[in-house]
Amino acid sequence: MNSSNNLVPVDLIIEARWLCPITPQNTLLEHQAVVIQFGKIIDICAITLANIQYQANEVVQLAEHMLIPGLINLHTHAAMNLMRGLADDLPLMPWLEQHIWPAEKKHVSEDFARDGTLLACAEMLSGGITTFNDMYYFPQAAALAATQAGMRANLGLLVIEFPSAYASDADDYLQKGFIAHDSWRGNALISSSIAPHAPYTVSNKTFESIVTYAEQLGLGIHTHLHETHDEIAQSEEQFGMRPIQRMAQLGLLGPNFVAAHGVHLLNHEIDMLAEYGCHIAHCPTSNLKLASGIAPVAQLLAQGVNVGLGTDGAASNNRLDMFAEMRLGALLAKGTSGDATVVPAHQALEMATINAAKALGMEAKIGSIEIGKLADLTAVKLSDFNTSPCYDPVSHLVYACGREHVTHTWVAGELRYNNGMFANIEPNELKEIINTWQPKLRQHKH
Amino acid sequence: MNSSNNLVPVDLIIEARWLCPITPQNTLLEHQAVVIQFGKIIDICAITLANIQYQANEVVQLAEHMLIPGLINLHTHAAMNLMRGLADDLPLMPWLEQHIWPAEKKHVSEDFARDGTLLACAEMLSGGITTFNDMYYFPQAAALAATQAGMRANLGLLVIEFPSAYASDADDYLQKGFIAHDSWRGNALISSSIAPHAPYTVSNKTFESIVTYAEQLGLGIHTHLHETHDEIAQSEEQFGMRPIQRMAQLGLLGPNFVAAHGVHLLNHEIDMLAEYGCHIAHCPTSNLKLASGIAPVAQLLAQGVNVGLGTDGAASNNRLDMFAEMRLGALLAKGTSGDATVVPAHQALEMATINAAKALGMEAKIGSIEIGKLADLTAVKLSDFNTSPCYDPVSHLVYACGREHVTHTWVAGELRYNNGMFANIEPNELKEIINTWQPKLRQHKH
Repeated sequence: MNSSNNLVPVDLIIEARWLCPITPQNTLLEHQAVVIQFGKIIDICAITLANIQYQANEVVQLAEHMLIPGLINLHTHAAMNLMRGLADDLPLMPWLEQHIWPAEKKHVSEDFARDGTLLACAEMLSGGITTFNDMYYFPQAAALAATQAGMRANLGLLVIEFPSAYASDADDYLQKGFIAHDSWRGNALISSSIAPHAPYTVSNKTFESIVTYAEQLGLGIHTHLHETHDEIAQSEEQFGMRPIQRMAQLGLLGPNFVAAHGVHLLNHEIDMLAEYGCHIAHCPTSNLKLASGIAPVAQLLAQGVNVGLGTDGAASNNRLDMFAEMRLGALLAKGTSGDATVVPAHQALEMATINAAKALGMEAKIGSIEIGKLADLTAVKLSDFNTSPCYDPVSHLVYACGREHVTHTWVAGELRYNNGMFANIEPNELKEIINTWQPKLRQHKH
Repeated sequence: MNSSNNLVPVDLIIEARWLCPITPQNTLLEHQAVVIQFGKIIDICAITLANIQYQANEVVQLAEHMLIPGLINLHTHAAMNLMRGLADDLPLMPWLEQHIWPAEKKHVSEDFARDGTLLACAEMLSGGITTFNDMYYFPQAAALAATQAGMRANLGLLVIEFPSAYASDADDYLQKGFIAHDSWRGNALISSSIAPHAPYTVSNKTFESIVTYAEQLGLGIHTHLHETHDEIAQSEEQFGMRPIQRMAQLGLLGPNFVAAHGVHLLNHEIDMLAEYGCHIAHCPTSNLKLASGIAPVAQLLAQGVNVGLGTDGAASNNRLDMFAEMRLGALLAKGTSGDATVVPAHQALEMATINAAKALGMEAKIGSIEIGKLADLTAVKLSDFNTSPCYDPVSHLVYACGREHVTHTWVAGELRYNNGMFANIEPNELKEIINTWQPKLRQHKH
């Protein structure tokens, strides 16, 4: 065959027993090599072929694994990992008003946001998540944490009308957001959306500014929408219309609009979301836990709305676990629609990858394993006795595996997590964070 | 203090950072020692006190763990682990008729039942389950597997009208069941229920015999009931009444009656279940996955029906994971009732322990950590960065932990699972089982 002189030098080759590229749809490849150079996928071919074409600095052999695109968590508040389990078994408003908001008022700071986000990044990387779409105070602190962890983050430039340790009023939130946004230009891992918290915490005037800024800066908009019946009733009373109608009138709806939750939607509202090209970040666990309800995922998908999956924050989930969300998202859609064929395993995986990438406007870069895309990749071991025998690896991935089966997580071709260890996060650093914040937050316990 | 001569010799002391005894309700103890002699719990006291009272052959220190009663899986078909993922994303009847039943018809044997059950025992023990309530062909083979694994099993003496490799007709099923039942007298780990498969597969005549036998032998009855709308419609057509009414007329309902599923129940039917003292084995994952629906757990509990949790078989779940069922059981009850306070964490844990023990008539022996009960115990590590900080350990156990946090599983004071290793199951034995059956069953793949 070729002499080694003819081999193309590359950074990394990952040889996978199974490969689920997501694009093309419903495809499962076997014995494939993913060839990576400068953080990008430059070839996908049979292992035997890769061996005679490329000379890699490093070869990772995954003889018992499936390689999937890195999972994308489309809605979270990463820093809230510090408040996991602080106030459980409560409905949304008492949970927010009596526990979460008072705790945040007293403790949220740049340090809180950085420390909590680093803890969340560790959790997410260890569960195969490579990108998260965040919304929280002090996004610049989240950027520090994500950059250290080596994760991709789309950070919300939070806007809310009430003052906090972070900002004093809506204009101040916006200005601080833009300063943060400017500060991470050139950081390939970090991008921004403008993140008005919710229709019930942001005024019309502020929403109008946000529409203008988003257009000028080419940014996405990330907000909570139609999470509870209360939110809708309150909007009807205050504005004479449901929140989504108000968003439409204010000019927010469009292909750059990501609405978290969308639990309570009328048929014509689903059509409207589809027509405007909006995206839903479906958070099934959080919606059940706060008793908000169950989003009509089967209808959303049938009517052409792009749906991704999110964990929401650790205070309402309480795992930032996209395997749990894929599984629950698929199960709930079946159980509530009465149709067991709805959201099959491949589609659940699409919701956690390419659909979320589309929602973030990042589908040219991430969300599938394709030549030219960034090498954000997750390896899942399928040879455990709890996942054997194996007849359909993709079904196992969604219905039988858990995040405990994730062995490797790469972001842009860099190995960020491997079998319990992180490239850039020391176990002691996480322990220190826990020991710092646990005593402070304990007083807000339910 | 005392000299060592005054210390009471015992087999085992487990020292736990946290102890959730289940009984009394809503209790969490700290720094407790559980003292075990001859497989039973003989004392529960402060660690400091245990050290001056007892001399143990073995002391296990769990400085970062919660000790809970061994979990009880109230409805499963353990041998079906061999068919996990064989036919997913299908409704109940095509799933059964086109995939599961043909595969069973061709392959089910004594070896199949033993091998599949051993694989399931490994999965269950590693997830902190110490007892399972089973229903499958060849219960004597399941008994062999459970006995080897050292797990407690209440095995259904399966009765169904159609012939199989196991038995030819209902009478033959019953006779074979009683022979099996007799054969495991003296085996402390194994007990029996009579297990008519379902109202749609068992005749009135057979049900009547079963009532008589159950009374004569003092056995429980374990069946599927009101799992799907189709089952109910078919019964209305064939018998002119809903299945539960038929069960009542045939004299099956009573405190020894465990109905798996109970997805579709009218208010007066729930009252009837409560009045007769029947038990529901709620299988939330399986019911969603087969699109059967969502059982009215909040109403069942409110109207006084005892509800335990089950995984169902691995072909419809696809994890025999009681942590997943606790979490989903709690979440679904909140999400569907609109009340986030329904099924709080402690109650979810009760459903997986003492409620299931009551359903099996075993509440004097298992289901809680109390003096005099068998030492069926599970240790769950709470110091992982994914479960820290920790404000409410029981909430973490249900909402944040997964079975991957289980470190030790004891049955009657014997350590059966510890950090990836089994006392009586060799990894190679599981591999051989997988390699034997996977090629045979693959042809029935969806």
